[in-house]
Amino acid sequence: MNLKSTSCIGFALSFGMLSCSVGQKKEAPGNEARRWAIALHGGAGTLLRSQMTPSRDSAYRASLDLALKTGEAILSRGGSALDAVEQTIAILEDNPLFNAGRGAVFNQNGKVQLDAAIMEGEKRMAGAVAAVEGIRNPIRLARIVMERSPHVFLCGAGAREFGIEQGLDTASADWFFTRERWEQLQRQRAKGKSGAIENAAHPNDGSFGTVGCVALDQQGLLAAGTSTGGMTNKREGRIGDSPVVGAGTWADNRTCAVSCTGHGEYFIRLALAHELHCRMLHGRKGLEKASGELILQDLSKAGAQGGLIAVDGKGRIAMPFNSEGMFRASSNGRSRKIAIYRE
Amino acid sequence: MNLKSTSCIGFALSFGMLSCSVGQKKEAPGNEARRWAIALHGGAGTLLRSQMTPSRDSAYRASLDLALKTGEAILSRGGSALDAVEQTIAILEDNPLFNAGRGAVFNQNGKVQLDAAIMEGEKRMAGAVAAVEGIRNPIRLARIVMERSPHVFLCGAGAREFGIEQGLDTASADWFFTRERWEQLQRQRAKGKSGAIENAAHPNDGSFGTVGCVALDQQGLLAAGTSTGGMTNKREGRIGDSPVVGAGTWADNRTCAVSCTGHGEYFIRLALAHELHCRMLHGRKGLEKASGELILQDLSKAGAQGGLIAVDGKGRIAMPFNSEGMFRASSNGRSRKIAIYRE
Repeated sequence: MNLKSTSCIGFALSFGMLSCSVGQKKEAPGNEARRWAIALHGGAGTLLRSQMTPSRDSAYRASLDLALKTGEAILSRGGSALDAVEQTIAILEDNPLFNAGRGAVFNQNGKVQLDAAIMEGEKRMAGAVAAVEGIRNPIRLARIVMERSPHVFLCGAGAREFGIEQGLDTASADWFFTRERWEQLQRQRAKGKSGAIENAAHPNDGSFGTVGCVALDQQGLLAAGTSTGGMTNKREGRIGDSPVVGAGTWADNRTCAVSCTGHGEYFIRLALAHELHCRMLHGRKGLEKASGELILQDLSKAGAQGGLIAVDGKGRIAMPFNSEGMFRASSNGRSRKIAIYRE
Repeated sequence: MNLKSTSCIGFALSFGMLSCSVGQKKEAPGNEARRWAIALHGGAGTLLRSQMTPSRDSAYRASLDLALKTGEAILSRGGSALDAVEQTIAILEDNPLFNAGRGAVFNQNGKVQLDAAIMEGEKRMAGAVAAVEGIRNPIRLARIVMERSPHVFLCGAGAREFGIEQGLDTASADWFFTRERWEQLQRQRAKGKSGAIENAAHPNDGSFGTVGCVALDQQGLLAAGTSTGGMTNKREGRIGDSPVVGAGTWADNRTCAVSCTGHGEYFIRLALAHELHCRMLHGRKGLEKASGELILQDLSKAGAQGGLIAVDGKGRIAMPFNSEGMFRASSNGRSRKIAIYRE
């Protein structure tokens, strides 16, 4: 690990870092601060800036700040990247402003079907769920699929049953109902549009979105997670990129942890999250360059909108997007950022 | 748009096939023979050689031969790689010897839930379905998800409904019932085992398996497809690697088309199919070397068994596996191979 090649990290790093390679790790001698970093997103393809009111803007920023604080508290105390990712995403899932958990969009049948994935970068263990109904925090379900089942990926009723068996909180249709999302469905229905492709032309009406978090902990471990309600008016059972390990979510300590947001079908066809990892590992590109190329060139060329957040093993963070905005926040304990548009 | 979506197509395909491929290219000048190639598999983790009887061995080889002929007939007449992949896999799905379609394993609830994916290498369009019940040929469903829906990936009842809307053949529980698979479920239940991880220790009891096909057509296009019933006694809603684009299935004209088989959870965590593509594209390795390393080194090191079939743009074929056997066949019109063990 090269101490000096940090990009947004400042310089107050202790020598303890020198001994921290992938995996294991002895504690830093004494109480020296060790490096950590976190980034989160609340979706790309946000409201157009022209439609954003000051009070809405404030509400979003306060929500991003609250979620960020959750992750910062875990990481600054030496907690794990996996815990930071899970807890930060759970906060965003419980917030009706974002398209995940409580604020999720409705599918063509007026149902909320949720997708989520989580992955850690040491052993590359992963858990994912798709088209799950009635589980309050799909990110927690993804984590217990990873830790307590022999499987990686569960969908539908089977995923819900597993969550209930394992004691996760359920939630009723009332919990998931938000007037704004219901009205979005009615507008989509009125247009006779059924999901993905048509939405690509105007992704800024808020009819899709995602939440995600990536983290580097003081032990040098990376983790990533993503959670979403998918796209308004999507088909029953539609799975986007978020729960597809390698498409919307990926983590590998050798390279980076990444969570994507945007028009999921394109992210699956590009295997975008894993592609970032490969350009770093096999193509020997840095995080910033590789992620920028993927979003600003490849995704744009494919005609799709979206973005990603990623962190590498040195705590460098990249948050490229090609849409008008992306709700996002990041911190490493010394510098903090909360943003929506290009600002 | 498959010309004739008959499953036992034999050889009566017209020259109309030439005009029905996705993103088709100019015709070859004159009638010069152009290169094509196909490979298929019927699963790794096959019956132990010690348990294979001569009549069973013959039945498997005849089945592989029949499926191979289907693909050869399409490709040798100038048909598309996508058609060859779909039709070849449909033949294997209809054959009760293989764990896909008719011969699929039962899950923990005694249900047959099917996964499949298909992908073409020019525009990297893809379609996938997971945990689908009652559709005779999931590979055809994956193809129409790709071609006639705005989505890439559908699961459960929503996937089935889409297939029925689109006029696909359904099939009853009787069609899918095979005594051997039912007895496998009872044996697993008696052992108190629920799927994936435990099976890894003894994958040769035939309780898992997959079918897949990859092809290069005379227009230089690649395609890949995979179809499976998953693992005996799997959880309701469990999704393996087969329908996960980038894990069990991938195609890109710049590198290769690949279909995997084996312990799916590990293939997802390695994003194995897309990793092969990346080692070729970014790591500049050849098909043989990259696929051999992945299966014989990386997969083995992860403690899992399985294999893959892959073809590159020059018609080179690789079929590495680290299990005792892998049902497989390949052809390029000049040389033909049908094999089960290392032979």
